[in-house]
Amino acid sequence: MARLVKFSSVFLIFIFLLGGCRKEVSVKKNTNATLETVIKVPLPSWNDTSTKKEIIAYVDVITDKNQPDFIPVKDRIATFDNDGNLWSEQPAYFQLFFAIDRVRAMAVDHPEWKNEQPFKAVLENDMEALAKQGEHGLLQLVMATHAGNTTEEFEAYVKEWVKTAKHPTKNVGYDKLVYQPMLELLQYLRANDFKTYVVSGGGVDFMRAFVTDIYGIPKEQIIGSRIKTKFEYNDGNPKIIRLPELDFIDDKEGKPLNIQKIIGKKPVFASGNSDGDLQMMQWAASNEHKSFMLYLHHTDSIREWAYDKDSHIGRLDKGLDQAKKRWVDSN
Amino acid sequence: MARLVKFSSVFLIFIFLLGGCRKEVSVKKNTNATLETVIKVPLPSWNDTSTKKEIIAYVDVITDKNQPDFIPVKDRIATFDNDGNLWSEQPAYFQLFFAIDRVRAMAVDHPEWKNEQPFKAVLENDMEALAKQGEHGLLQLVMATHAGNTTEEFEAYVKEWVKTAKHPTKNVGYDKLVYQPMLELLQYLRANDFKTYVVSGGGVDFMRAFVTDIYGIPKEQIIGSRIKTKFEYNDGNPKIIRLPELDFIDDKEGKPLNIQKIIGKKPVFASGNSDGDLQMMQWAASNEHKSFMLYLHHTDSIREWAYDKDSHIGRLDKGLDQAKKRWVDSN
Repeated sequence: MARLVKFSSVFLIFIFLLGGCRKEVSVKKNTNATLETVIKVPLPSWNDTSTKKEIIAYVDVITDKNQPDFIPVKDRIATFDNDGNLWSEQPAYFQLFFAIDRVRAMAVDHPEWKNEQPFKAVLENDMEALAKQGEHGLLQLVMATHAGNTTEEFEAYVKEWVKTAKHPTKNVGYDKLVYQPMLELLQYLRANDFKTYVVSGGGVDFMRAFVTDIYGIPKEQIIGSRIKTKFEYNDGNPKIIRLPELDFIDDKEGKPLNIQKIIGKKPVFASGNSDGDLQMMQWAASNEHKSFMLYLHHTDSIREWAYDKDSHIGRLDKGLDQAKKRWVDSN
Repeated sequence: MARLVKFSSVFLIFIFLLGGCRKEVSVKKNTNATLETVIKVPLPSWNDTSTKKEIIAYVDVITDKNQPDFIPVKDRIATFDNDGNLWSEQPAYFQLFFAIDRVRAMAVDHPEWKNEQPFKAVLENDMEALAKQGEHGLLQLVMATHAGNTTEEFEAYVKEWVKTAKHPTKNVGYDKLVYQPMLELLQYLRANDFKTYVVSGGGVDFMRAFVTDIYGIPKEQIIGSRIKTKFEYNDGNPKIIRLPELDFIDDKEGKPLNIQKIIGKKPVFASGNSDGDLQMMQWAASNEHKSFMLYLHHTDSIREWAYDKDSHIGRLDKGLDQAKKRWVDSN
């Protein structure tokens, strides 16, 4: 039972993905050269650090049938946090920016919002007043913009938003704010027959609406927080209606619980960047198979953002201490 | 948008599966003969009925790139009810027999059960008294036997039970009471790049513990009812504890709701045998892709069981009317 927790010192490369499909890059060993697979060096954007070496060494050993640490394909479950791990999360979660943009788009049908918090703060672009509304205010924003529609309508709103919205400080589309080294890691693991999952505190239907192509992860492998829903037969044209009530928060203890509910297997590879991922890492670390836990540490204030223990978004405190301690213990 | 609901008139063949792994049979068209695939006639155990022909015609048309009804592989989601559809469900659900056997096994640690219903009825093998305890009594049995343990312990209990327990009237192991024609249908769909799911009112962890090999369906594609759970760090040896409280009932409206929560895609193929599957069928029927809804009707009282509208288990009433009506409308 391996208990490595890797403290990633890789410099994050903040990239602008070109649209379109990416080809899966096979980096399997023993690939038959006559097959149409391209053998490339794994993780090309990663600096040549010990973290990169440890990841490759891990994948080599668990895919080698002659090694005692070999893991059968069916158990190669890899779970990735999303916010701050696959896409960025500063200065606030993308989903909050979506909610803010939705409030503005919906305001014409809600004249009362001009005088009602937290909507007033959003419409007046007064982020200080919005912050004062606290968690309850944010929840109100989310429910007003995420519920009261069908699953199909909500998906269409998100898809339309992604097409046009721009990040407030980086001024590019949100679909461009994903981490190239992490995309390469997803591809590398899949090329070695891992099943890659997103396991995020973000809303599951929000993520499903636009990251499936970018990450190469199908909807059914995206796990997240949810609001309640109800089914309506609707005279033979059935709908699922999204209700303004929380159903499940996929964060902290919620991550291993949801992994068990939905996947029913412990991950062997878990990746995250905040204390909200610690329980998922602990769960993976208790796998009877050799496991790998990767903490991404944001240290590049020039090209990206640098934050950890004191950040109000993506706080990495206990997780950072654990990662450093285990890194020292295992090396 | 196809709205076929097929009323299956196939005679059910009640079979005794030999143990061990089954090989996936490829029945793909255009299979390269140099590859190690075996081309066989699909659905060999099925009688040569219109139902069989319609299934094959459907698969042919939706896998043909030159047809307007072609469905991309990522959207080939097939959902199967379990009780009475993949395995049998008479004279009571297998999971109830498991609960009864667990009560007997646990009774040594619970001397108070001798005088407490519903346990007293179970220990005295008084099925009439047990029936009188109603739904509340059954729920008590389930919670006493399914909760208060870890996910790993529960899985071990089920696996051990499957090894030794015998069905009370058929006197064979429960793992033998699965339907050969339905196993062939699962294989046939997978050979045509469908992703096959179980979507059942039964307990998800109960099913996962023993049907994955028999059905060829991995744990993460088994969806069912759940009890609540909690995560315990347990000094670095984390556990998920099963709590005596219902979390989700995966039946009726719960089926499309859970399909949306967990898969995030509408099925194109839905298969069931009771009114509890009707909403899942309605959801599949509203797919923008051509869809196929298969109702299994138990009509073989000699080799299996015959039941529909009046059965207290797996009641097929509205579903049967709908299936017959749609069968007439579409032919």
